[in-house]
Amino acid sequence: MKMVKAIVRPEKAADVLSALSAAGHNSVTRISILGRGKQRGLKVGDVYYDEIPKEMFCIVCEDSDVEDIVKVISQTARSGKEGAYGDGKIFINPVEQAYTISSGKAEL
Amino acid sequence: MKMVKAIVRPEKAADVLSALSAAGHNSVTRISILGRGKQRGLKVGDVYYDEIPKEMFCIVCEDSDVEDIVKVISQTARSGKEGAYGDGKIFINPVEQAYTISSGKAEL
Amino acid sequence: MKMVKAIVRPEKAADVLSALSAAGHNSVTRISILGRGKQRGLKVGDVYYDEIPKEMFCIVCEDSDVEDIVKVISQTARSGKEGAYGDGKIFINPVEQAYTISSGKAEL
Repeated sequence: MKMVKAIVRPEKAADVLSALSAAGHNSVTRISILGRGKQRGLKVGDVYYDEIPKEMFCIVCEDSDVEDIVKVISQTARSGKEGAYGDGKIFINPVEQAYTISSGKAEL
Repeated sequence: MKMVKAIVRPEKAADVLSALSAAGHNSVTRISILGRGKQRGLKVGDVYYDEIPKEMFCIVCEDSDVEDIVKVISQTARSGKEGAYGDGKIFINPVEQAYTISSGKAEL
Repeated sequence: MKMVKAIVRPEKAADVLSALSAAGHNSVTRISILGRGKQRGLKVGDVYYDEIPKEMFCIVCEDSDVEDIVKVISQTARSGKEGAYGDGKIFINPVEQAYTISSGKAEL
């Protein structure tokens, strides 16, 4: 199992959630965060705005679903056809075990 | 070392924290999140409420403590004896290294 | 690639961010959390204050940058020369893959 962590623009969050549902990936956790990337945020005049609000989605899935989830999120979260700085990142972390609390059962 | 990530109902959060302390697991991080599971949240009439507030706990522990922590959280966070959809999930991630900032020492 | 997760005092957060930038590590995600450590928070009289606000930084980096990032955060987040309980922790998680949404490209 893997944990897909995607950091996206807040204005893209609703679209990403809808696209994930439409592709059959309902389970998701959402966290509001602040982020800055390699460009160190936005520069307006001499001032850096280096803490930009973003939304983070965490999705735990089978290994075989990672590729599709990355594709769905990438396509939905991108700005226009070309994409732009600040569109976000997706990271894949390993998950060694998963449990469902209601049943108490391990899923791996 | 492992990182145990548990997503639970907000109304169970205080009980889970007390139970963890009682079992000797004091160190824990708490984050307020929004989540939806396989059922895509709650359906009331034709409307899906698909962003349900949850609390996430992150606990970094020795490998040998994982089983007890999962047991304590599962039993405390479950709704009634049978459990119910939405009681939450527990995920186990690997941790490769841990440092204590005050001492500057690595713990692994 | 690794994900460095650092939990620090809120009053140290701005210093940590500046020190990371100065050391060439601009990319960082910031999350406001509640935490308690082995001491179970602060005890004032008979009352435990066991949910202390902290800031968590997540930094995804090359393996070779982990040591420097841990050093920069540790030195900046420590209280005085000796450090104190509650200064925080740093954890290193593995990252298996990273994607940039704007380009759609994998970075590993």
